[in-house]
Amino acid sequence: MNPEIIGISAGVLSCTTFLPQVIKTWKSGSTDDVSLIMFIIASISTTLWLAYGVLIGSISIIFTNTIVLLLTIVMLYLFYRYRNHSS
Amino acid sequence: MNPEIIGISAGVLSCTTFLPQVIKTWKSGSTDDVSLIMFIIASISTTLWLAYGVLIGSISIIFTNTIVLLLTIVMLYLFYRYRNHSS
Repeated sequence: MNPEIIGISAGVLSCTTFLPQVIKTWKSGSTDDVSLIMFIIASISTTLWLAYGVLIGSISIIFTNTIVLLLTIVMLYLFYRYRNHSS
Repeated sequence: MNPEIIGISAGVLSCTTFLPQVIKTWKSGSTDDVSLIMFIIASISTTLWLAYGVLIGSISIIFTNTIVLLLTIVMLYLFYRYRNHSS
């Protein structure tokens, strides 16, 4: 089997990792059990990956990390929006 | 600046993304707001990345995805352990 088929499948799946969390939080309106630090780390690491992708000219890295960064930004917005949910 | 410094920083940070969620859930004993589907997707994509790393012989991909997979397995165990928390 061509390793690139596995690699591309892994990449496509990685892009969508945060999507179920965004949908769940959007519906429930609660972020109480979700780690804010996880998404802060994700936003920093994804920004670094994007910078790396631009510097080495990798369309794949730029493309996948743009999607992940967008989902991370939506999650950070949801944390802000529902920040007083438990109080 | 050497792009590889940015790339390695991004990689190291990516490895630790799920760690704050594992710590938070371990302490709180609650997974109510956390998406199980997110961690199921993460476990599949990380396994695919591991297979890809083995097939192309990339130590970096094998190393980082082993750490992420271990954190994902711990999270899935916590979902199982606290599955009746809200009932």
